[in-house]
Amino acid sequence: MKKLIGTTLALLSMATYGQAKEDSIQFRTISTEILNNGKGYEELRDLTQNIGKRLSGSEAYEKAVQWAAKELRNAGADKVWLQEVMIPVWKRGKESLYIKAGSGKPQSLKMLSLGNSEGTGGKDVSGEIIMVKSLEEYDRLPAEKVKGKIVFFNHPFDQNYVQTFIAYREAGAYRRSAATLTAKKGGKFAIVRSLSSALDDVPHTGGMKYEDNMEKIPAVCIGNTTADQLEELLKNQKVIATLNSNCGMKGEKLSHSVIGEITGKKDQSVIVVGGHLDSWDVGEGAHDDGAGIVQSIEVLRTFKKLGIQNNHTIRAVCFANEENGTKGGKQYGKTAKDTNEKHLFAIESDAGGFSPRGISLEMDDTKRKQIQGWGNLFLPYGVYNFEGKYSGSDIAPLHDMGVPAAELVPDPQRYFDIHHTEEDTFEKVNRRELLLGSVVMTQLIYMIDKNW
Amino acid sequence: MKKLIGTTLALLSMATYGQAKEDSIQFRTISTEILNNGKGYEELRDLTQNIGKRLSGSEAYEKAVQWAAKELRNAGADKVWLQEVMIPVWKRGKESLYIKAGSGKPQSLKMLSLGNSEGTGGKDVSGEIIMVKSLEEYDRLPAEKVKGKIVFFNHPFDQNYVQTFIAYREAGAYRRSAATLTAKKGGKFAIVRSLSSALDDVPHTGGMKYEDNMEKIPAVCIGNTTADQLEELLKNQKVIATLNSNCGMKGEKLSHSVIGEITGKKDQSVIVVGGHLDSWDVGEGAHDDGAGIVQSIEVLRTFKKLGIQNNHTIRAVCFANEENGTKGGKQYGKTAKDTNEKHLFAIESDAGGFSPRGISLEMDDTKRKQIQGWGNLFLPYGVYNFEGKYSGSDIAPLHDMGVPAAELVPDPQRYFDIHHTEEDTFEKVNRRELLLGSVVMTQLIYMIDKNW
Repeated sequence: MKKLIGTTLALLSMATYGQAKEDSIQFRTISTEILNNGKGYEELRDLTQNIGKRLSGSEAYEKAVQWAAKELRNAGADKVWLQEVMIPVWKRGKESLYIKAGSGKPQSLKMLSLGNSEGTGGKDVSGEIIMVKSLEEYDRLPAEKVKGKIVFFNHPFDQNYVQTFIAYREAGAYRRSAATLTAKKGGKFAIVRSLSSALDDVPHTGGMKYEDNMEKIPAVCIGNTTADQLEELLKNQKVIATLNSNCGMKGEKLSHSVIGEITGKKDQSVIVVGGHLDSWDVGEGAHDDGAGIVQSIEVLRTFKKLGIQNNHTIRAVCFANEENGTKGGKQYGKTAKDTNEKHLFAIESDAGGFSPRGISLEMDDTKRKQIQGWGNLFLPYGVYNFEGKYSGSDIAPLHDMGVPAAELVPDPQRYFDIHHTEEDTFEKVNRRELLLGSVVMTQLIYMIDKNW
Repeated sequence: MKKLIGTTLALLSMATYGQAKEDSIQFRTISTEILNNGKGYEELRDLTQNIGKRLSGSEAYEKAVQWAAKELRNAGADKVWLQEVMIPVWKRGKESLYIKAGSGKPQSLKMLSLGNSEGTGGKDVSGEIIMVKSLEEYDRLPAEKVKGKIVFFNHPFDQNYVQTFIAYREAGAYRRSAATLTAKKGGKFAIVRSLSSALDDVPHTGGMKYEDNMEKIPAVCIGNTTADQLEELLKNQKVIATLNSNCGMKGEKLSHSVIGEITGKKDQSVIVVGGHLDSWDVGEGAHDDGAGIVQSIEVLRTFKKLGIQNNHTIRAVCFANEENGTKGGKQYGKTAKDTNEKHLFAIESDAGGFSPRGISLEMDDTKRKQIQGWGNLFLPYGVYNFEGKYSGSDIAPLHDMGVPAAELVPDPQRYFDIHHTEEDTFEKVNRRELLLGSVVMTQLIYMIDKNW
């Protein structure tokens, strides 16, 4: 009996070894194909430089929809379609922010209204600036000190975190809720220090949210240098700020997410790989999230090009409206639920097109451990970290329905220098780093398609 | 007895745990200090933009020597000195390369003479181009086919390798030996396709070497796009190349490496951290190796600033002449040997100022395993790879004397896009990535200082 078990174990371990070797060879084939023949970088150049920034509701976004459908067909998808979704239309328009310190002359500040913010309706709105460094400090301020004032939330991005996403999440509270917090105490508008890891003067826009039944007052952001200068000014004198802006929500509009798939050879349960097609209305949306889009399309192309016989359907989804509503992700989840379409797995790339370092896994422990067990296969590709427990905002509705979800984890050091800014442009993306992201997602999907 | 062993083990493991916790806290303190107060990025701006490129023997290099001494003093070094070293002086001068395809007009090619190459003495040297794709192909060519010709070594950088340094080493053989190989078969000069991972037209210079007693004919490099175009032209017609260049070796010169140290509290055995102060004569030498210089100075500053009581002497060495002679490293090693100065450990940073991923260890297995055993402490800083077995070229002489040596291993995807080119400039360096390199080297030196 002992001998039998021994033999069985030996055979099993030989089988496992043979398996690992076969997988390792397939990993190399995928990497060789993409690093040599990948089209993602040139696709990204096209998307970012010929279409450019593409906020939900803009003409550019609609062009991007057609572009994505074309690229998915070129990648060899068996089926490409547009998924209807109602999206919010937010527009920036003209905007200006002046300050007047003491008896000095008014000076213009470099700024951006935060995304989804209402403006001043083209009128000047003025008030004295009061500064707080933290939410706790703001909470302690009595309402009469805020009433009629402009609140400057001057909370810096915490450089301590090696994982910059933690600093982003922490500072994000200010961007999201500054307007409502200010309105609650009778302030006129809010100025928020940008969520930026760079030591420069670039303002970083991004989504903010109004609480229901609260007055919708404006919120704007300024760059780090301007924030430091304003802090300095406020030490010695009264500073009056005057905002004039035309931004605001302009209703809803019918738009689309774009979907392409290669049909499963064994069944039609779905593996999703995706990113979001929209961007903010500044820069070119290169890292956020043109990168995720072209990486997802590359996954499909690679399966097709290498003739890998996928058991399950592999679907690239270019989600609409991640930045200011996540309506594309929500609609995708709803449709999957309504049509009772079985989803096996979903992965999103929405953290920049930098060198991959890991895959974050939001799923039950058994599946999580299984994927972690494949870790050694990924090491030669620089991917070692499978400890994260989150996935992406577009696939959150799928995960809420019980679908195992994941996110590609690239190197996070540069992302928040450029995120949601004029600086998020094509030339900030490195070809090899971008393509390696596609390599790793293709490898993971190959493993999941084969083993689940 | 069993109980006694059990208790001893439990105590030992508690001690180990306490130790690991203390180290982990010190790691965090180091990281917090550098990510918030690190001066390396601003120092690098100063070095690259106010002094700029600084080839051995140039006036700029001598300015860099004074600059480094000043920065080491500012960092709080107990002692700063210049170490004399004779270095080769190579100068580029005017250079041009024209080709004439069939009966067409001459056209100028973007090019750079390779470092250390002799020129044509200001005269035109012309000949028909023959192309080879590999050294093997060249070896098979009979000498009469090469005689009087120009050999174009068109070996592309292999994009397959995730570890781009492997591709660099492989393709490096062409740059180093093209001239001598060509001379051996009677060719007039060599054109080498650049060792470049970028899909652009930027030529990458770098060191070449003449074999003793061989004719010193010129070698130049061209960018990838030009190389592809030349390959295309050669398919259908004779192409004549004409080189005119003034470069060449102009003897030797007395120069200096720059050294600063903080004295050991327990003994004066030395831990070295270093990079090279010289650069090629194009670009700004930002990643190669301004980064390594400012990171090494940062290590000293951090020990001093945090008041860490170092047992052994910690020495930052800014080596002279790594690029075209490694005379600084050789002289340092020789001096250490001559003065019988005990060295405990040496680490070099000379692979770019990108996000650190690992530490490569060139030392005996016991020490190697000890450092690998500290691996978990480094994981929160993105450092996971301790598998490499090489160190740096400047500290090779120390390693040859038996000193355990190491190299910082940053993310390698972007380095060979810009290495030895006009594009190696300050704005390609990211502040957080650069500082993290200092964090990791400081942490490692803290551990070695404490445990060796």
